[in-house]
Amino acid sequence: MITMDMLYDARRVLSPVANLTPVIPAKGFVPDCRFYFKADCLQKTGAFKLRGAYYKIATLSDEEKARGVIACSAGNHAQGVAFASREEGIQATICIPEGAPLSKIEATRSYGAHVVLVDGVYDDAYNEACRLRDEKGLTFIHPFNDYRVMAGQGTIGLEILQQLPDVDVILVPIGGGGLIAGLAYAVKNLRPSCKIIGVQAAGAPSMYESIRQNRIITLDDVDTIADGIKVKTPGDLTFAMCQTYVDEVVTVTEDEIAAAILAVLEKQKLVAEGAGAVAIAAAMYRKLELAGKTVCALLSGGNVDVTMLERIITHGLAKAGRTVSFATILPDHPKTLATFLDAVSSLGVNVLEVNHERSNMQAPIGSCVVQMLVETRNHGHIDELFAHLRRQGYVIIPR
Amino acid sequence: MITMDMLYDARRVLSPVANLTPVIPAKGFVPDCRFYFKADCLQKTGAFKLRGAYYKIATLSDEEKARGVIACSAGNHAQGVAFASREEGIQATICIPEGAPLSKIEATRSYGAHVVLVDGVYDDAYNEACRLRDEKGLTFIHPFNDYRVMAGQGTIGLEILQQLPDVDVILVPIGGGGLIAGLAYAVKNLRPSCKIIGVQAAGAPSMYESIRQNRIITLDDVDTIADGIKVKTPGDLTFAMCQTYVDEVVTVTEDEIAAAILAVLEKQKLVAEGAGAVAIAAAMYRKLELAGKTVCALLSGGNVDVTMLERIITHGLAKAGRTVSFATILPDHPKTLATFLDAVSSLGVNVLEVNHERSNMQAPIGSCVVQMLVETRNHGHIDELFAHLRRQGYVIIPR
Repeated sequence: MITMDMLYDARRVLSPVANLTPVIPAKGFVPDCRFYFKADCLQKTGAFKLRGAYYKIATLSDEEKARGVIACSAGNHAQGVAFASREEGIQATICIPEGAPLSKIEATRSYGAHVVLVDGVYDDAYNEACRLRDEKGLTFIHPFNDYRVMAGQGTIGLEILQQLPDVDVILVPIGGGGLIAGLAYAVKNLRPSCKIIGVQAAGAPSMYESIRQNRIITLDDVDTIADGIKVKTPGDLTFAMCQTYVDEVVTVTEDEIAAAILAVLEKQKLVAEGAGAVAIAAAMYRKLELAGKTVCALLSGGNVDVTMLERIITHGLAKAGRTVSFATILPDHPKTLATFLDAVSSLGVNVLEVNHERSNMQAPIGSCVVQMLVETRNHGHIDELFAHLRRQGYVIIPR
Repeated sequence: MITMDMLYDARRVLSPVANLTPVIPAKGFVPDCRFYFKADCLQKTGAFKLRGAYYKIATLSDEEKARGVIACSAGNHAQGVAFASREEGIQATICIPEGAPLSKIEATRSYGAHVVLVDGVYDDAYNEACRLRDEKGLTFIHPFNDYRVMAGQGTIGLEILQQLPDVDVILVPIGGGGLIAGLAYAVKNLRPSCKIIGVQAAGAPSMYESIRQNRIITLDDVDTIADGIKVKTPGDLTFAMCQTYVDEVVTVTEDEIAAAILAVLEKQKLVAEGAGAVAIAAAMYRKLELAGKTVCALLSGGNVDVTMLERIITHGLAKAGRTVSFATILPDHPKTLATFLDAVSSLGVNVLEVNHERSNMQAPIGSCVVQMLVETRNHGHIDELFAHLRRQGYVIIPR
């Protein structure tokens, strides 16, 4: 059972270790409301998961600490458990499915944990973790279905109420439900009028469906760039807490998540991972009414692999009409390319890449295919560009 | 003349408008010292420049306000002046050299400023701004060589001392010198024992050279990705302030700046622009002794064009040995590519891109060139990979 005493105890335990992360005003980010981020991407280890893992580990018995802990995760929970274990001077073993990004494996190792790479997917790593737990008498640190873990995550709720006392709505990402369970419990006790809205990826809506059907649902397939909340089954404890304390659960699409990551990066200068951006995406794309309200979206983590971040930037720019790729076919004469590029530039379009292929199979002999990537202001600007080029007789093939 | 009264007045004027940006602990980011960021990339408009521009504009006479202001900038100063003018309800005109990133032009427009795009480079835009100032009686808002602008920027110094009272060293980016002048004045009055270190890009070391030669130097060429501090000549007022109040000026290379941007993005989840990252680069690459000290690096802005950020990520990963590109030549038989890829993967290397060119001119007939981009752990891992492949008889050509 979770209690307010446990939450305050978690705050006391965490205060010398965890950062009190800032609540950042983001005027104009979402129209018609007073919008704020709780930036737990600035938490140590780059995500809120440290809070729950640390509180759980700190409150183990001396005997449990002496035997050590085990967890299964390719992500923020792994780093949280590794960090907390190092601080408490105990041995942590983390089972990670092979094929996880090298940067995450290295980060977990850098906190001193013993990493076991397991062939296969998450479920295989989980089975191996259970086997090692039984074999070695280790304590398994569950990523969400544990009241102490929930209480640790719930300290974010205490902080938000202190930093933004008149908050009307808090938007919270949901994976297994540990974060929102602890946070909602704290907030509904202290400020019952504040709405707690859970947000899931449409590609992994396990809590959304469970709440809707009023029973715990296991999804067959989950697929989302928000890998931190890619969970097939909510916990039984977290599900019950969400039924009682969460006002509504909404979902966001992959494109909305990517657009939110890009907007946070560009406008707020913060790095959000997919799971960390869903609450912001829900506000940006108006999944509920926010007009006139004081709204706080939890940016829960920033551990996105940078190669993934590159792809999200590329995708997000194209989606927003700020870059466009297209091809044209030009006669293979001197100067035709220069003339074409002049026509492109004349509208204030910046050329980013040109690929001039003489031997492209799709072009008639005596002509060549030119592939372009250009920087534009928006979708209207792209339409204007294409119309301008077509009026001059160019064939334009958007890609 | 600048005074402490002016600094406190600037703080009073700015307090309802500017964010009090957080000082964020970054344990382990730089070894052997207590390292902190002052994250003014989280300032409104994404950079500290708002502070000086706002204080200057707020203290204009009613008559000057009625006539409006003009500035010349492609960057943060433009956005600062535009934002401040809108808040104060006055008309701002900003001259921007054509070819500036579209995102920066759009951001300036979004704050309601009238943007004049000027053919040519910065100097042409500056001349046009002076012409418009004279023609229309506008007040020119200098980006740095103005005591009120310096006082506005100096409020960062007051904040750091309040947030981190035992700071021993503050590292500050220098372009024209307005930021460090105001900050150093504040800190040296209130905590004389604290060292103030200026940091410039090695490709634009105008203040560095001026201090070294004890006279104001104008550089012929400046070239750096830190475009916010790409300044050919320091101001005379800022130069005199730096001579008096700054302990030392150091420089950092382009590679060091790019590595700092990547490290801040990945480890601290914050976006730094080039100019915003130089102070951090100076600490990372130990341009001065920091052992045992409490060190605060000013992350002064985060307005990096995202297409530039993509390139910095790509470059930074390669530089750190976390990706590597190479080519090999394979006989053009079935399965040779699959066998080769198996050999690559066997060392825990992730394949990111494969380009298999049958018609490459450099390959003998009957063979093909395979270009690869792979993800590795570090430079040692790359050496291991290449040695492993060469032992199996493959020709490896690093690119």
